[in-house]
Amino acid sequence: MTLILSNDDVDRLLTMDDVLSSLENAYRDLGVGKALNTPRVDLLVRGPKPLSVHGFKTMSGSVPGAGVASVRIDSDIVHWPEIAGGQRRVKIPSAPGNRYVGLVLLFSTRTGEPLAIFPDGCLQRLRVGATNGLGAKYLAWPDASVVGILGSGWQAGTQLMAMCAVRRIQRIKVFSPTAANRKAFAAEMEKTLEIEVRPVDSAEEAVKGSHIVAAATNSMGPVFLPHWVEPGMHLSTIRHSEIDGETLKKCDIVAIHHRNLAIGIAQAGLEKEVPEMEHGDYGRPDLQIDWNALPELSDLAVGRGPKRKDDRQVSCFLNPIGFGMQFSAVGARLVEKAKQVGAGKDIPTDWFTEAVHP
Amino acid sequence: MTLILSNDDVDRLLTMDDVLSSLENAYRDLGVGKALNTPRVDLLVRGPKPLSVHGFKTMSGSVPGAGVASVRIDSDIVHWPEIAGGQRRVKIPSAPGNRYVGLVLLFSTRTGEPLAIFPDGCLQRLRVGATNGLGAKYLAWPDASVVGILGSGWQAGTQLMAMCAVRRIQRIKVFSPTAANRKAFAAEMEKTLEIEVRPVDSAEEAVKGSHIVAAATNSMGPVFLPHWVEPGMHLSTIRHSEIDGETLKKCDIVAIHHRNLAIGIAQAGLEKEVPEMEHGDYGRPDLQIDWNALPELSDLAVGRGPKRKDDRQVSCFLNPIGFGMQFSAVGARLVEKAKQVGAGKDIPTDWFTEAVHP
Repeated sequence: MTLILSNDDVDRLLTMDDVLSSLENAYRDLGVGKALNTPRVDLLVRGPKPLSVHGFKTMSGSVPGAGVASVRIDSDIVHWPEIAGGQRRVKIPSAPGNRYVGLVLLFSTRTGEPLAIFPDGCLQRLRVGATNGLGAKYLAWPDASVVGILGSGWQAGTQLMAMCAVRRIQRIKVFSPTAANRKAFAAEMEKTLEIEVRPVDSAEEAVKGSHIVAAATNSMGPVFLPHWVEPGMHLSTIRHSEIDGETLKKCDIVAIHHRNLAIGIAQAGLEKEVPEMEHGDYGRPDLQIDWNALPELSDLAVGRGPKRKDDRQVSCFLNPIGFGMQFSAVGARLVEKAKQVGAGKDIPTDWFTEAVHP
Repeated sequence: MTLILSNDDVDRLLTMDDVLSSLENAYRDLGVGKALNTPRVDLLVRGPKPLSVHGFKTMSGSVPGAGVASVRIDSDIVHWPEIAGGQRRVKIPSAPGNRYVGLVLLFSTRTGEPLAIFPDGCLQRLRVGATNGLGAKYLAWPDASVVGILGSGWQAGTQLMAMCAVRRIQRIKVFSPTAANRKAFAAEMEKTLEIEVRPVDSAEEAVKGSHIVAAATNSMGPVFLPHWVEPGMHLSTIRHSEIDGETLKKCDIVAIHHRNLAIGIAQAGLEKEVPEMEHGDYGRPDLQIDWNALPELSDLAVGRGPKRKDDRQVSCFLNPIGFGMQFSAVGARLVEKAKQVGAGKDIPTDWFTEAVHP
């Protein structure tokens, strides 16, 4: 049987510890050349209405240590409306029922068979959180207990869950531009984490005195100012645009998820429809650092990277882009747990296999 | 609803004319930059038994003119046994029920939604045939009526179907090394095509006097000899190893499916397990030609390529590797026809979409 799982299954079955440990194992394999990733490729063509595109994104990864390979597929209708005076990249839920389309297909590296199919949304958010969590695990001050988080959206929750899983966090401050959002987020996370989460009125206030400062925004510009950086801090980002070169210069240690930020993009006559191509949202921005010299998360996972020397050093973990191996590793754990409790829908594996030599 | 189709559906619903016309439209779009392909990527890791690998292959393509994008996924257990004194690349059907794993997922470029999932095997064979058929349509002598085919295996049947669809073929000769195989194949194809199909005792006999000579083998070495080439012939191959540089020199016109033969391969410590890497089965072989100067099928489709000037010129079409756009284009036609007759199994599209922003 091939399992069909839902986002609800993902959220219900996977703990942050599951995600952290399955990813950590995979990064260790990657660090010794025993796990693989393909580059992400985006195919962009004209979408159903003016200034929209269909983006077809695939990335795959193989983690034989967990017995799986996977491909993640996103089939998005994207446009770039003006929102609050700025241009935003917005996916339009155009599938039946006003839904989005993102899937992970998980296969066994032992038999080749399709093990499971599930949506990518909740897992994608968990793995971003856990990836930055591992960055903090390897780089942040061991006694870090105060987190300042910038952003109160979809990605912010798993960032906090991950930081709390890798350090004994006692206090959290949150800032995001809309007061109602940060208040609601703080209340919700305080309940989830059972730790004090306080909304604050400025980014600087969230940063001040924090041991870990995590950006989890969709900002097109830096959210830290260089002079906010304090001795001992660990900075964490999920987009390259959240930090600038001046702030990075204040860091003693900078590590990155992985150095290969290149995305294969093919597009068909869409120059005007795809602002990313002009705005440099893909690729390596000018952060005045030597990208090729940055240690990667897999280096840190196998103990090859730089280590924090004392409680005064400033560290930074950049996580501008993911890769397919994350979905394989976490997907394997998901299927293991789904089977334990009999979750999901079964489809005959024969529907997805064949008798003829492909 | 998302349609689940089978290889039987593919064979029952699609005619060779369907495959030829849907591909021809897509190659015309490709020729003017309106269809897209990703490079094929293979991830190779250690397989379940010694000297075996798990190969995870993905390729995708977007054909907005047909309203679709697709990804083809193969999850293969491969080994290289010694067969009849030679090393052969053999896929092991290791999925439950001793089955292979190859899938196509088709998505709408208008809504993003998953339209269909089906195995790749029969469609892959049809599109190889049709691709070489289009090569013959654009390059072979218009009055070609005699085909010589080398090979009587899985790929040979669709080669003949395609050649018969693009030219008024009256006679076919077939050679393959095992007499029983070529006889059975000839009898079967004679029934299918309602044209005389005669097994012959040598490759040279199959070639002699034929207007179109189609190789459809898994040979690791050339199957034509240069001095067999006759004026007016059209040569057609499905593997680069089937032809050599000397034979190509006899050709006035040489075209190729597409010039980018590069496959992205990542592998994890497998040097000994993957003979392809030594044998050069991937990449551009030394055929003493200027690969970058070869016209592609999409050039021929939009009338940009070379044209046969007379019935004395020798033409050749090389089809060493496919790409994802083929599965999109033919998949769109398949779904159209499946809906007309109510074929396939329906799965709620909601199972493959999501409410959260991926």
